[in-house]
Amino acid sequence: MIVILKKNPNERQLENLIQWLKSLNLDVHLSSGVDTTILGLIGDTSVVDIDLIRALDIVSTVKRVREPYKNANRDFHPDDTVIDVGGIKIGGGHRVLMAGPCSVESEEQIVAIAKRVKAAGAALLRGGAFKPRSSPYAFQGLGKQGLALLKIARAETGLPIVTELMTSSQLPLFEDIDVIQIGARNMQNFDLLKDVGMTDKPVLLKRGLANTLEELLMSAEYIMANGNGKVMLCERGFRTFETAMRNTLDLAAVPYLKEKSHLPVIVDPSHATGVAALVKPVSLAATVIGADGLIVEVHNDPPKALSDGKQSLTPDAFDDLARSVKDLYPYAYDLRKEGVL
Amino acid sequence: MIVILKKNPNERQLENLIQWLKSLNLDVHLSSGVDTTILGLIGDTSVVDIDLIRALDIVSTVKRVREPYKNANRDFHPDDTVIDVGGIKIGGGHRVLMAGPCSVESEEQIVAIAKRVKAAGAALLRGGAFKPRSSPYAFQGLGKQGLALLKIARAETGLPIVTELMTSSQLPLFEDIDVIQIGARNMQNFDLLKDVGMTDKPVLLKRGLANTLEELLMSAEYIMANGNGKVMLCERGFRTFETAMRNTLDLAAVPYLKEKSHLPVIVDPSHATGVAALVKPVSLAATVIGADGLIVEVHNDPPKALSDGKQSLTPDAFDDLARSVKDLYPYAYDLRKEGVL
Amino acid sequence: MIVILKKNPNERQLENLIQWLKSLNLDVHLSSGVDTTILGLIGDTSVVDIDLIRALDIVSTVKRVREPYKNANRDFHPDDTVIDVGGIKIGGGHRVLMAGPCSVESEEQIVAIAKRVKAAGAALLRGGAFKPRSSPYAFQGLGKQGLALLKIARAETGLPIVTELMTSSQLPLFEDIDVIQIGARNMQNFDLLKDVGMTDKPVLLKRGLANTLEELLMSAEYIMANGNGKVMLCERGFRTFETAMRNTLDLAAVPYLKEKSHLPVIVDPSHATGVAALVKPVSLAATVIGADGLIVEVHNDPPKALSDGKQSLTPDAFDDLARSVKDLYPYAYDLRKEGVL
Amino acid sequence: MIVILKKNPNERQLENLIQWLKSLNLDVHLSSGVDTTILGLIGDTSVVDIDLIRALDIVSTVKRVREPYKNANRDFHPDDTVIDVGGIKIGGGHRVLMAGPCSVESEEQIVAIAKRVKAAGAALLRGGAFKPRSSPYAFQGLGKQGLALLKIARAETGLPIVTELMTSSQLPLFEDIDVIQIGARNMQNFDLLKDVGMTDKPVLLKRGLANTLEELLMSAEYIMANGNGKVMLCERGFRTFETAMRNTLDLAAVPYLKEKSHLPVIVDPSHATGVAALVKPVSLAATVIGADGLIVEVHNDPPKALSDGKQSLTPDAFDDLARSVKDLYPYAYDLRKEGVL
Repeated sequence: MIVILKKNPNERQLENLIQWLKSLNLDVHLSSGVDTTILGLIGDTSVVDIDLIRALDIVSTVKRVREPYKNANRDFHPDDTVIDVGGIKIGGGHRVLMAGPCSVESEEQIVAIAKRVKAAGAALLRGGAFKPRSSPYAFQGLGKQGLALLKIARAETGLPIVTELMTSSQLPLFEDIDVIQIGARNMQNFDLLKDVGMTDKPVLLKRGLANTLEELLMSAEYIMANGNGKVMLCERGFRTFETAMRNTLDLAAVPYLKEKSHLPVIVDPSHATGVAALVKPVSLAATVIGADGLIVEVHNDPPKALSDGKQSLTPDAFDDLARSVKDLYPYAYDLRKEGVL
Repeated sequence: MIVILKKNPNERQLENLIQWLKSLNLDVHLSSGVDTTILGLIGDTSVVDIDLIRALDIVSTVKRVREPYKNANRDFHPDDTVIDVGGIKIGGGHRVLMAGPCSVESEEQIVAIAKRVKAAGAALLRGGAFKPRSSPYAFQGLGKQGLALLKIARAETGLPIVTELMTSSQLPLFEDIDVIQIGARNMQNFDLLKDVGMTDKPVLLKRGLANTLEELLMSAEYIMANGNGKVMLCERGFRTFETAMRNTLDLAAVPYLKEKSHLPVIVDPSHATGVAALVKPVSLAATVIGADGLIVEVHNDPPKALSDGKQSLTPDAFDDLARSVKDLYPYAYDLRKEGVL
Repeated sequence: MIVILKKNPNERQLENLIQWLKSLNLDVHLSSGVDTTILGLIGDTSVVDIDLIRALDIVSTVKRVREPYKNANRDFHPDDTVIDVGGIKIGGGHRVLMAGPCSVESEEQIVAIAKRVKAAGAALLRGGAFKPRSSPYAFQGLGKQGLALLKIARAETGLPIVTELMTSSQLPLFEDIDVIQIGARNMQNFDLLKDVGMTDKPVLLKRGLANTLEELLMSAEYIMANGNGKVMLCERGFRTFETAMRNTLDLAAVPYLKEKSHLPVIVDPSHATGVAALVKPVSLAATVIGADGLIVEVHNDPPKALSDGKQSLTPDAFDDLARSVKDLYPYAYDLRKEGVL
Repeated sequence: MIVILKKNPNERQLENLIQWLKSLNLDVHLSSGVDTTILGLIGDTSVVDIDLIRALDIVSTVKRVREPYKNANRDFHPDDTVIDVGGIKIGGGHRVLMAGPCSVESEEQIVAIAKRVKAAGAALLRGGAFKPRSSPYAFQGLGKQGLALLKIARAETGLPIVTELMTSSQLPLFEDIDVIQIGARNMQNFDLLKDVGMTDKPVLLKRGLANTLEELLMSAEYIMANGNGKVMLCERGFRTFETAMRNTLDLAAVPYLKEKSHLPVIVDPSHATGVAALVKPVSLAATVIGADGLIVEVHNDPPKALSDGKQSLTPDAFDDLARSVKDLYPYAYDLRKEGVL
């Protein structure tokens, strides 16, 4: 870590800072120029509270030379992590499609969709039972009953299920769930991260509405530091001034994350765009840029013709998407083959 | 609510939509133009899931005429809410200063600061016991012990205490806390909002890193809809491309929120700017623009001269800030006196 | 256009508004509900100043049913625009690679790069002669001499040249230039847009640092409304809070723009990411999602080993990129084949 | 300037880099740690193209110790710049109100408003003659005739006039204009900045839609480096995800800019919020936080009752605003009195 001090730092404060840094078992390498004084810190700087140092009066800036995450870091774990979900492998060249409705609505609905997406080649079934909604008056999901319906669909199709956990107190209900999803709004709900970190379940961690890729990796680090290494990173777009689409999808994040980390990277084209017509082209791009999987909203035709969601695909549209995506697997960007790793 | 349909909507879908809307006890007022067809919905539209309608194939756009929040809405509650914290009134012209350290570090520290900020005129003591940190390796706060030290400082000074709750499982520890703070990263942790909504404690709800003012009010609505009307809204800046300061403070949000809602609005100049030198000028502006209170980080001089945080004020600097802020109370913008309400 | 009025609008103001709208040769269709009053405007609303109406006291909101652009609008021009640059076709299924250095540095440099990128399959040569720099002290480009060197490279290779125009007074110098580039910082330099609109040169219009896709199309409209229909839209990412990359590339913009407009869409992976290692994967994704072309920074090995720019590719790396991109042409997303158009 | 190299940099490249830096008349101070190698550059680093260094393969990051601007820098010019506009002083404790309509519409209109705002205490008259509009079909202003009408209003009232210049070719028309305004969309129109830098007219430079404060100061540097030191910086808010207001106003920018630079700082509460009801409270806050002036949109009552713009104040409302703002002048934050400078 590099600590760049302000011009003519207070001697006493500088001495105290150096003593304090040494007390953290760091070697401190002082280098003074005319314009500036620099401290080079050698040792395990991951234990250093960078904000604390940054806040010091005599400090101009602090620059990490190593990333602040270890377990999620490709440097300390060169090989791709491959996550096994009931026999389905994700990562390390194993690519998957996860598909299903935004919300579980009924047994008929979830079973019908599960059969269709399985037939199309989906490896996992997604579906919301507990729904984060910005309004307390909006539909909050079927909850516990929704989980039960997902398990029925799993029993009928054999597809492992992915569904969102919103609070630690629901954890007991998720014991028989295959993949725990942490939603964008909870990406920095650190207690929730710690609690899923103490389970042994695969976790699909979504990027927050306004979080950097480093923060996403730090949130993965929370889970991993608590013992659970089965983390999948999910790029689902973030909030910008652009209103043409629901979010702005950051596809360049896929190769960026795969260089920095060994964890699988999943892309959610449905929430990213919020427009069904854009889900297929975005899925093709996400595949070619190297995503280890896609999580796609698919909806059948429910009563009242409320079906054709702007964001949800029909089963037929998903059949077509799945075919086109698989045609591109041979062309998917691979950092190791490219010699980037 | 206004639902603007796409050109030449599918007859069957339109009929189904109208039937479904009527089934929600809404009067549906159809109006067809050459270019477009519009549905005017009369009734309690707060129960309508706007996203669901927006997602329909035949719908071009949906526009609420009324805000989606009721309990927090000035229209349904014209008078300012005045919150009483151990005899201290906040809102409705009652302005307060909340001050204290970012983190509780020791009994000596918190008691010393509490005495200083009380002498300067602070009405509440703030201090972090449970700290949300983006790194699992950064100092996470003293936790339960931190709460105990805050209570000691309260006993010594009589100042009510404000401290952050990070997860519902900590609620029992907060029974004797005066004001529960919900941090920016938890603004849309809806289960946490519901749980604090079931308590009778005043809540300081901070705006999220990338949340709109409407979302802030909807999060307040979560708390209020669960029975707890004692909500204070806190503007603390949000994340933008600008890196000169820690966040971009949206001071215009203060009169905006006070027009839309009857809840008190507090400004946090410390997290907003992240720079001690900017805390005073921002505090003056926040006062004049009509904030009901300020929550300011103040730190004493701890060992190792690690004190002068860029963001924390010294007690002396806080004395000066408090004096200057109080001089401006007579000039604070008041929507009612201005005839805006 | 739909004008939604506030509740109980002032009668006189409403009457005046309606008269004024009729004076613009619009049919005004009044529809009154309990909650709201709506005006449906039929006719050529592209002449209506939406901001003026939005600013009226009695108006709650204004919603366009038709996009505010006509010449750039797919509705009024269903077929893809195909732009011919010295025999090279761009758009309508014709895909191209534009490549070259960020700045023209010397004849030796630009000619060498031109030969290499031509050999790799680039159809146009890019190179900066006039450089927009945020610092007046940074290298501003070789200017007029840079244009001369580009023409030498064109003479040697036959590659048409693309280079940036920064101000109208430079237009005479661009008479012999094949494609005029309008940089991101000038996307809303409306006088410059009008002036290039009065030429007959193909224009590569880059999206601004914080501009919406609608604003990009409106800037294209400025050029087209002045008589020049040869506009290529360029997505090059925009500015967000994310600092991992230089900009956030909005690849979903490609199919979005191609649905809304008939103009070719070019992607700039170099400025979008600012990282050479990300240029290839982003180029693959941009190709598959349907971009009509890529504009890529390629640099040879200049003296002083200042070569391997984070953002610029070596000629060898470009050879590889070009091969991989062309392998994906058969898989490029095509809205017409998909039945979206 | 500090150049932090990657681990184990290529020896040859490092040597070449050092030689090249020395060729720029910089002293290079090499400091090697276990983890990292750092180059400290002493000398006039403002001539160094930081992007070029940042782009080098062996470079991890580059950190300026000094700001990249000189003429605008408080360090090189400790005293506040005071700009004289026809006898009106701005800056250095001299505070002004600039007011007038968004657009000049007619002689009757501009003269009437000029008289009213002068009576209220405005020191300058603002009014748009050339209007930047995102649509080529929207009203573009009266142009040359608008300038003539502004001069008539000046002759009638003695108020100096502030109006926007959109392109260098209009400069001859501005010879008799008192203050040239550079709009947000032209903040990085570098040729325009150079051209106004070659005049001797006071310039009101507005912050761009998505520009940092450092970029704003660099744009001021463009003007000053070309010989014109009479620059006023204008904070008018920028674009974020928040749609409640037209822009997000960054009031903390005022004391930030005044610490970094000696130039006057003006705040535009009208464009910042886009809502008339917010203009007064924001003006009070801008005054107390230390703005040297405000530029406010004021409109009279034109025919057709199209008057009460959401964003424009009536003359009566401006009378009230002016009184309240002046009451706060004694409380305006002053960095020198506070000992920050």
